[in-house]
Amino acid sequence: MQKYDVIIIGGGAAGVTCALSAHTIYPDKTIALIRKEKVALIPCGIPYIIHSLNSVEENILPDELVTKTGADLIIDEVIEKEGKTLKLKSGKEVGYDKLVIATGSVPLLPPIQGITKEGIFSVKKDYEYLSHMRKYAEKCQDIVIIGGGYIGVEMADEFIKNGKKVTIIEMLDRLLPTTMDREFGNKAQEILESQGIEVIVGHRVNAIQGDKKVTGVVLDNEKEIKADMVLVSAGARPNVTLASGFGLAVHPRNGIWVNEYLRTFDKDIFAIGDCAAKYDFFTGNFSNIMLASTAMAEGRLVGSNLFEIKVMRKFIGVLGSFSTKIGNTAFGTSGLTEEKAKEMNMDYIVGTATTTDRHPGKLPGASKLFLKLTFSRYSHTLLGAQIYGGDSVGEMVNMFSVMILNKMTDMDIDNLQIGTHPLLSASPIAYPAINASVDAIKKWYEYRKK
Amino acid sequence: MQKYDVIIIGGGAAGVTCALSAHTIYPDKTIALIRKEKVALIPCGIPYIIHSLNSVEENILPDELVTKTGADLIIDEVIEKEGKTLKLKSGKEVGYDKLVIATGSVPLLPPIQGITKEGIFSVKKDYEYLSHMRKYAEKCQDIVIIGGGYIGVEMADEFIKNGKKVTIIEMLDRLLPTTMDREFGNKAQEILESQGIEVIVGHRVNAIQGDKKVTGVVLDNEKEIKADMVLVSAGARPNVTLASGFGLAVHPRNGIWVNEYLRTFDKDIFAIGDCAAKYDFFTGNFSNIMLASTAMAEGRLVGSNLFEIKVMRKFIGVLGSFSTKIGNTAFGTSGLTEEKAKEMNMDYIVGTATTTDRHPGKLPGASKLFLKLTFSRYSHTLLGAQIYGGDSVGEMVNMFSVMILNKMTDMDIDNLQIGTHPLLSASPIAYPAINASVDAIKKWYEYRKK
Repeated sequence: MQKYDVIIIGGGAAGVTCALSAHTIYPDKTIALIRKEKVALIPCGIPYIIHSLNSVEENILPDELVTKTGADLIIDEVIEKEGKTLKLKSGKEVGYDKLVIATGSVPLLPPIQGITKEGIFSVKKDYEYLSHMRKYAEKCQDIVIIGGGYIGVEMADEFIKNGKKVTIIEMLDRLLPTTMDREFGNKAQEILESQGIEVIVGHRVNAIQGDKKVTGVVLDNEKEIKADMVLVSAGARPNVTLASGFGLAVHPRNGIWVNEYLRTFDKDIFAIGDCAAKYDFFTGNFSNIMLASTAMAEGRLVGSNLFEIKVMRKFIGVLGSFSTKIGNTAFGTSGLTEEKAKEMNMDYIVGTATTTDRHPGKLPGASKLFLKLTFSRYSHTLLGAQIYGGDSVGEMVNMFSVMILNKMTDMDIDNLQIGTHPLLSASPIAYPAINASVDAIKKWYEYRKK
Repeated sequence: MQKYDVIIIGGGAAGVTCALSAHTIYPDKTIALIRKEKVALIPCGIPYIIHSLNSVEENILPDELVTKTGADLIIDEVIEKEGKTLKLKSGKEVGYDKLVIATGSVPLLPPIQGITKEGIFSVKKDYEYLSHMRKYAEKCQDIVIIGGGYIGVEMADEFIKNGKKVTIIEMLDRLLPTTMDREFGNKAQEILESQGIEVIVGHRVNAIQGDKKVTGVVLDNEKEIKADMVLVSAGARPNVTLASGFGLAVHPRNGIWVNEYLRTFDKDIFAIGDCAAKYDFFTGNFSNIMLASTAMAEGRLVGSNLFEIKVMRKFIGVLGSFSTKIGNTAFGTSGLTEEKAKEMNMDYIVGTATTTDRHPGKLPGASKLFLKLTFSRYSHTLLGAQIYGGDSVGEMVNMFSVMILNKMTDMDIDNLQIGTHPLLSASPIAYPAINASVDAIKKWYEYRKK
């Protein structure tokens, strides 16, 4: 029986990152990554197989990422564990010293009548499934998307470019409802509608019509919408089946229990990525945010700490940092939204700024940019940032994550030395991070006077 | 005589920002900004008046920025000071309680024989002068730029777009020599040369040819280059004339002496921006870096602390954070270069990463991105970042400034939760900040083994 120092189960973002990190920190250890899929996909690239990419092939995560480090890539499925030996579907057995579970998540299918009809798809990270879906979509004309989170919105944006008639149905009262505040959800809706997408918020799908194949959906207000394809993007649940079989503590909705080092109750088994329980950065409560950025941060942390705690590096909780692009407008968010701050009964101040992202604004390529920052009124620390604007939003949001992690205050941000350039950013006088902080400072002084 | 609570002398980036900040923090105080120029310009936009903008008008910093806060904008020149009264060129007198000097800098003209001939220009922040230069350039064909810093490089990039024959002459051994390492200077040179610009490094201009008008320049190797226009972009010196007349401590090259609150020896007089002495963030030594980003950070700090020290906010020294765009490639830098770290005898480790800034790289709009991070070997803190790549470099460099200011280590960065998106950024697996940090960590372990 082959024995490895480290075995990682799962070839997604978390697993691959963990393998790379383990190789960097422990170059002499033997590492295997076991994956049941023949090919792995770039998770966040999946919506773009519809239009922006020419095929699912163009979205493959190359195996060389893993194998070039000298790690073994085993295409097989882990069935059970006995002591420190894993039994595989092929009949083979492999031993480990340290085990990392990165089995990801599975799309949630809401309990709607008729949800299993032909023509109904979810977003599985599966090459064959997605290739089939891509081909199937070619023949379809009326596409209904259930769920207006970022996958739903991105898919809608892709389908409309292919000339489909697209309807998004979101049961909450706006698009992107769990990650961004109302003004951002409304902005996303405005852009999608301007492209000809129908957006329905505040309604559920009650039933799916059609015999074998889907022909339409019926909403809770009895409205019927024609559909020859339905895409369900209504969230995901952690894939804990294997971990549960191993006897680890799991929760069907929250995932595999792990501590701040992503260690399970078994000291030689770690869990990372979508399958592992997530804790909110601010409250420490369970979080249902599943993002590649979180998964990979966990993968790198576990990769570094497998055999010894190299540095006191703990996972500090899910920040929820993400970006997307709808039409020509990029959206980004990190940390708390105002709505979440309210839910938590936090005492907060909001600062906003509107600017153009080139200066002078007459330069070609300038986009309007809107930024909303949420600060603690008491400590002045930055709690969250939300932005829409040009493509540079994609990196700006990471700057805000770094600010939140470092507990920077409005005054710290006001004090920043920011590099700006006419062709690349807002004017230094209108630099949004600073101006939104100044707006918050102004409001604090106004509040103090009262 | 009119008396103001605050008078700011100078209408550039520092002065305007200070006025805005003072208004925010002390809304009840009366503020005047005295400026001798009829119109103010956006400093970093100046190179772009040549081609990207249609006129100098399009690069005007609007007066409303100042006046809409209720501050008075006085177009006049301060001649002298008696007690707390300023005498203006027009004969008027104005009194102040707090005075802020923001008189900026003047371009350095190297002592080259013939430097005052017709057709020789420097980059003055002066509307009439630049309008004349723009018009003059229209008739010219052969343009020589003395100085390969970022203004020289940006102007070259603009002139070539207007179909001129352009030569840049830099006396040091590469372009952008004081702010970026060799590989970045070389990359800038490669891009400029591919556009047809001639780049000469490691040589000085010894003489300027022509009778009244310039006809060419002669280098220190006796090479002659034809020129009907010469643009000198060889740095600037602080404009300390007025401050010197006020009896403040000044140094002709380093500027007006100020402490960490930007206060001069006179407790009611502050100096900010290019005219104020600058201290290096790392060493505390005098720094000759003059940037709008620094000037405005100083302006905001002084604006907040004019009447009382609101928060213990000190100016922490010049970080040197800037970005530019050459051809289609953006360049950014913040903190120490490797060369500077070497000069200071710092014990450092360099980590690098190369990636594309979209993922998968087959998506439209993807650019190659190269990042170089310099860390302290002992403390692991980030000392500097240099990048070239697509437009998002403009915001990425600010993320690195925030990391440097917060003394983040390679492990801290490796641990980050980074938002990425196919259409906006590198893949999370190839995210450059993380991968360059991992590269540095790898090198540290290799070094430790030795």
